[in-house]
Amino acid sequence: MKYEKLDRAAIDQNLSELGGWTLAADGLSISKTFKFRNFVEAFGFMTEAALAAEKYNHHPEWFNVYSRVDVKLTTHDAGGLTDHDIKLAKAMEKAAAHRLD
Amino acid sequence: MKYEKLDRAAIDQNLSELGGWTLAADGLSISKTFKFRNFVEAFGFMTEAALAAEKYNHHPEWFNVYSRVDVKLTTHDAGGLTDHDIKLAKAMEKAAAHRLD
Repeated sequence: MKYEKLDRAAIDQNLSELGGWTLAADGLSISKTFKFRNFVEAFGFMTEAALAAEKYNHHPEWFNVYSRVDVKLTTHDAGGLTDHDIKLAKAMEKAAAHRLD
Repeated sequence: MKYEKLDRAAIDQNLSELGGWTLAADGLSISKTFKFRNFVEAFGFMTEAALAAEKYNHHPEWFNVYSRVDVKLTTHDAGGLTDHDIKLAKAMEKAAAHRLD
């Protein structure tokens, strides 16, 4: 696995493709708040995302309260954003897509 | 379901029985940080706790990063701590117990 930091152009390109993700002011992480109908939907999303995270061996920082999940992604080993974050963000988008209205 | 706020004596009694939970300075919530061996153990704990939460219709506020899970419990409808929080805390202790060394 490579842990090469993405440059700003690559980050911007990926974020525009992903949609709804925000780059932190320090440029080191991306975050998004997912809203679902209820806790079951939210935790279903988390479970699917957790399986992807474990498969990629790249894990999120996330907070959940009822139907809301706040996600923050960064690659600690690289001190910033890498392809791993984009890959996990894409998996999360997929997991969220079939749970949203 | 009753949502009667616990008085301070009841809270203290329950916390001493639970072990490791901290009462917030404002007395309105309890919290605990659970540490596991890895993400799989941490998310396994969260899954078991989520099933209990849904069963009790009483949900936690929680944050996870890799092997760590920070939990905060309160009963919003009661504006403080109730038996629901204690019940969920006990279920979490049980879920954590067979995952810790």
